Amino acid sequence: MRTTVGWQADRPGTALRRVSFERRDLRADDVAVRVDYCGVCHTDLHAIHALPETGDARLVPGHEFTGVVTAIGPDVTRFRVGDAVAVGNIVDSCGLCAMCRAGQENFCTEFPTLTYGGTDRHDGSTTLGAYSREYILRDRFAYPLPSDLDPAAAAPLLCAGITVWEPLRALGVGPDTRVAVAGLGGLGHLAVKLAVALGADTTVISRSPDKADDARRLGAHDLILSSDQRQMTAARNRFDVLIDTIAVPHELGPLLGLVALDGTLSQLGHLGPVTLQTMDLLIGRKKLSSAGSGGRPATAAMLEFCAQHNVTADIELMPSARVNDALDRLGQGDVRYRFVLDLSDLS
Amino acid sequence: MRTTVGWQADRPGTALRRVSFERRDLRADDVAVRVDYCGVCHTDLHAIHALPETGDARLVPGHEFTGVVTAIGPDVTRFRVGDAVAVGNIVDSCGLCAMCRAGQENFCTEFPTLTYGGTDRHDGSTTLGAYSREYILRDRFAYPLPSDLDPAAAAPLLCAGITVWEPLRALGVGPDTRVAVAGLGGLGHLAVKLAVALGADTTVISRSPDKADDARRLGAHDLILSSDQRQMTAARNRFDVLIDTIAVPHELGPLLGLVALDGTLSQLGHLGPVTLQTMDLLIGRKKLSSAGSGGRPATAAMLEFCAQHNVTADIELMPSARVNDALDRLGQGDVRYRFVLDLSDLS
Repeated sequence: MRTTVGWQADRPGTALRRVSFERRDLRADDVAVRVDYCGVCHTDLHAIHALPETGDARLVPGHEFTGVVTAIGPDVTRFRVGDAVAVGNIVDSCGLCAMCRAGQENFCTEFPTLTYGGTDRHDGSTTLGAYSREYILRDRFAYPLPSDLDPAAAAPLLCAGITVWEPLRALGVGPDTRVAVAGLGGLGHLAVKLAVALGADTTVISRSPDKADDARRLGAHDLILSSDQRQMTAARNRFDVLIDTIAVPHELGPLLGLVALDGTLSQLGHLGPVTLQTMDLLIGRKKLSSAGSGGRPATAAMLEFCAQHNVTADIELMPSARVNDALDRLGQGDVRYRFVLDLSDLS
Repeated sequence: MRTTVGWQADRPGTALRRVSFERRDLRADDVAVRVDYCGVCHTDLHAIHALPETGDARLVPGHEFTGVVTAIGPDVTRFRVGDAVAVGNIVDSCGLCAMCRAGQENFCTEFPTLTYGGTDRHDGSTTLGAYSREYILRDRFAYPLPSDLDPAAAAPLLCAGITVWEPLRALGVGPDTRVAVAGLGGLGHLAVKLAVALGADTTVISRSPDKADDARRLGAHDLILSSDQRQMTAARNRFDVLIDTIAVPHELGPLLGLVALDGTLSQLGHLGPVTLQTMDLLIGRKKLSSAGSGGRPATAAMLEFCAQHNVTADIELMPSARVNDALDRLGQGDVRYRFVLDLSDLS
């Protein structure tokens, strides 16, 4: 076994603490990655809050990271030691089901192996995440990191980025598309950048007028204040695609009103149960959809696209020892737009 | 004014009674239609049940009918006296909004004028429907009835038919599409016939094994029993388009499980509020949609298509004097698959 160091949560509400723990020895198709940068995702907060109050649960979060290959198993041909790589929230899948064969390993019908809190398909162990200095995974789920991309600012592409990229692409977003992005956070700011880079006419929908400068700086062509009924009425039926990244429960009716004939609202931020009026879909033959994470082909394509169009996340980089500060501020919404941990302080 | 005879509802729960009432004199762009056949739609039942218990409300239902033009206004050029025509549930719209300009008068942002229970855009009167011997409407909302179509069996195409036709076409159903139709009633049996005629691989999803013979006779290639968990599991992620015509509230999760990657469930039968788990959309990037009625171009195209492919409704034809029997049996689900009233007994 290989020993590494990371940040572990034991209970909801308590600080993560620095721990040493073991990673598996490399299997034939494994790579070992020195984790350099890992994004702090809302899912990490949810997972910590969902820990049991008692018992032996242990959680090492972290599922959007970049780093360098430090060792490879004998069957690995895609990478060599020293290669820069990026890894997202999936580290294995069955490879055989229709979804895997379609390149949508994120929808594997046998359920994909998650980067943390998942169950390894071979030894049954619970996966521990990338708030740590080393990660071991099947080579298929590591992606070459284009050298044009800043490795710290690229880390959030592997979860937040791919989560917005897949619906943008599946919904055919391009120069002829009118896109709205509701909510300007970790997901939303990348949705704006990617939609703009795809050539779409892009509008931000926000509660806060103080997001207007940021929206413009990110490349958005317009901003609609959701609290201004006049603006909302004027924008009825305007958008072919509405990417809804609002993280808390909210009414879908007002947002569906902005969707154009045969358009789609893709709800990415709040994944709980939703209630809606069928008539809000019927009038205009509108669609409600969702998406999350991504398959291997789309993830590789997104990284190439981001390198070509110079798209990365707007980040606040901090030493991993400040992880608890990052989580506290994320919980308060005090981040523009993604915290990234620098794991070099664990060496 | 012109006097006609029809069947009027006064209160929920009481029988419709035969009444004489007045139609407007023809405006310049009006046609008068002798109503020969009118379908009995679930909406008619809902509208009767929604009548107030007291007061002067009057309702003449009926919004899918065929007949013959008996008079035309001076500006009418599309029809001549003696032409066979068909009319659906919309008899006017603003004509100016983006939806009307897109040929989706059914989604007119000023709200279309409904064939009954609507408000006439010129005199403010409440429209009275086609359970009657004559109907007066703006010529734009009458459609030439192809001579190949039986006028009685064609009547339900104008509401049930167009309601399933629009989503089938908007969702691109054709020879490469796998379509499922849930619920085999007025809407469902036409969805099956139209999907089959469009060349799609078509499956019926039903609670009742006794629908199997009908499904086959209608042209369906397969039947899935929704009560058989083995069949439902085997059909996971199978259908690009699922036309859900179930008229009562029901769980969407099991049906969404049958929808393929990037596929769509179009909910047409139950139009109340729905609750669903976002994860049922997320896994497979599935879409929930709805639709209802149709615009002028699609309605005309559907009638042409039905004439070419010999598609009409399976009907039980009865004299209009038996309208209360038809409504009772419709309320009990005792119809295969649409009652049509013969209005000639009102002459």
